Amino acid sequence: MVYGALDIGGTKIAGALVDPEGRLVARAQRPTPAHEPAEALMGAVTAVLDELSAHPAWASLDRVGIACAGPVDTAAGTVSPVNIAGWRAFPLVERVRAHPRMPAGIRPALVGDAVAMTAAEHWLGAARGVDNALCMVVSTGVGGGLVLGGRLHTGPSGNAGHIGHISVDLDGEPCPCGGRGCVEGLASGTAIAARALAAGWTPPPGTAATAAAVADAARAGDATARAAYDRAAQALAAGIAATITLVELDVVVVGGGVAQAGDTLFAPLRRWLGAYAVLGFARDVPVVPAELALDAGLIGAAAAAAHAGPRPVPHAPAS
Amino acid sequence: MVYGALDIGGTKIAGALVDPEGRLVARAQRPTPAHEPAEALMGAVTAVLDELSAHPAWASLDRVGIACAGPVDTAAGTVSPVNIAGWRAFPLVERVRAHPRMPAGIRPALVGDAVAMTAAEHWLGAARGVDNALCMVVSTGVGGGLVLGGRLHTGPSGNAGHIGHISVDLDGEPCPCGGRGCVEGLASGTAIAARALAAGWTPPPGTAATAAAVADAARAGDATARAAYDRAAQALAAGIAATITLVELDVVVVGGGVAQAGDTLFAPLRRWLGAYAVLGFARDVPVVPAELALDAGLIGAAAAAAHAGPRPVPHAPAS
Repeated sequence: MVYGALDIGGTKIAGALVDPEGRLVARAQRPTPAHEPAEALMGAVTAVLDELSAHPAWASLDRVGIACAGPVDTAAGTVSPVNIAGWRAFPLVERVRAHPRMPAGIRPALVGDAVAMTAAEHWLGAARGVDNALCMVVSTGVGGGLVLGGRLHTGPSGNAGHIGHISVDLDGEPCPCGGRGCVEGLASGTAIAARALAAGWTPPPGTAATAAAVADAARAGDATARAAYDRAAQALAAGIAATITLVELDVVVVGGGVAQAGDTLFAPLRRWLGAYAVLGFARDVPVVPAELALDAGLIGAAAAAAHAGPRPVPHAPAS
Repeated sequence: MVYGALDIGGTKIAGALVDPEGRLVARAQRPTPAHEPAEALMGAVTAVLDELSAHPAWASLDRVGIACAGPVDTAAGTVSPVNIAGWRAFPLVERVRAHPRMPAGIRPALVGDAVAMTAAEHWLGAARGVDNALCMVVSTGVGGGLVLGGRLHTGPSGNAGHIGHISVDLDGEPCPCGGRGCVEGLASGTAIAARALAAGWTPPPGTAATAAAVADAARAGDATARAAYDRAAQALAAGIAATITLVELDVVVVGGGVAQAGDTLFAPLRRWLGAYAVLGFARDVPVVPAELALDAGLIGAAAAAAHAGPRPVPHAPAS
């Protein structure tokens, strides 16, 4: 038995057949024609499915999961990825279901990319064996997903866990989302780089002004660079503490490009978390780096497929 | 069949036998000896149980629920109510279970008071028939509880839904809880009255400077009083929007003394919610007043008892 998995982002469209232990039995990939119309985009998905369906393991396909850049609407089965302009309320679930070689009776499960990462970390990564977790992607944006009571908590439309767009600064700067003082606006890689530049930091000659370059400077002792990470860590901590306080968590997992800064991010993040997560039940929740990077989207799509139906999930909840 | 219910607060200790439709078949009450030692407090609980157990319906007692002022630790079965100094990590569940007339095999379910209010509103009030709800008590403090996926979401220690102590102002004022910029510090009745006073409002002669008095002034057109409610509404909206964005909600129910201000609170609250709950899935979630007031704690304790075990909850979830 295998799970079919699709991971659709602004750069690539990947697919895999995943066995019940989370191993990729087959893998296919195409570049995302991100600036082309809806049918050209779907053509790339179809090409990935064509290639996967030629693999012998396709015969034992049991379920299909799709991870897609958000927003998604899992109730409607549609996607409107910010970074894929040709798809707006695109009926991806129905179109994948209608692939000529799709076995009858399979209805693909759709999840946003951060929820897929959460499902992957819960199945095989840093949230393994835990009943209540927040998993986050901190990169050019900030996304997240929740595991509650041992199960993926997606919400009715599949968008639960959107920690990047909660306000931790009610009088703060307007966010492109329409809100203000959002975690993403304070803590994304983009925000870190912009803050460092505004405070006078400059990247080494020939280097782009990225959060990674700011992290290098911070590690070398640059106070401005450290301050840029500290403020991001403060905002992440306020958002994480809010989540812990609202739903109770056993662990917080942080992945994405900004998490690659390691202790440059995690040390101030843990310190600030101590300042915001203060109620007895909310204290001392571990904050750890994500364990899966490569193919986390595919593994998460498979985990979400396994989770979606009445049959047991691959990683049985601990309680 | 009846549920036994206890509702323990800083003023009174109430108990009831509640039938499966939520009607109070019997009711007993004692003043809380709030400044006395642990055993005197327990004596009042015992007196309530003695009185209830003399009622004929006690013979059909099926489960028992306890709502108690927080913090509570439902895993340990202990309570440490802020406003009842004599109880710190007091083993209330075990002591109620050990009442001489308690039927063998009953293990009381413990919930915090805001979670009890949530269970009550979900069973018989404004969150009836809804799968995902935040219910809040806004009074001298700000508390809350969550219904997710049709069920009460209490978290492992029973403290989920603590919206009063999430930060919506990461650089804001220190909160007695140890955090800063907490919703409670900006939006409680205490905060509303303090803000109005600081801005120059004075209560009418002979009237206490309460949030209710500020609401009266706001209704009469006092701009300072209106501004005090507006700021509270803004902070509540930021916290509610964060909750919607994190878990997805179908309805938000607001009760407690401050909610008695009616449109003086709800009109700016709904306006501000439109400014913070902006993502597609988070928009236009209804915010409505609580429907139960009298005996909500007892009804909620009964609902929590019904919810706790494997037998069906009195209000079957809609999905």
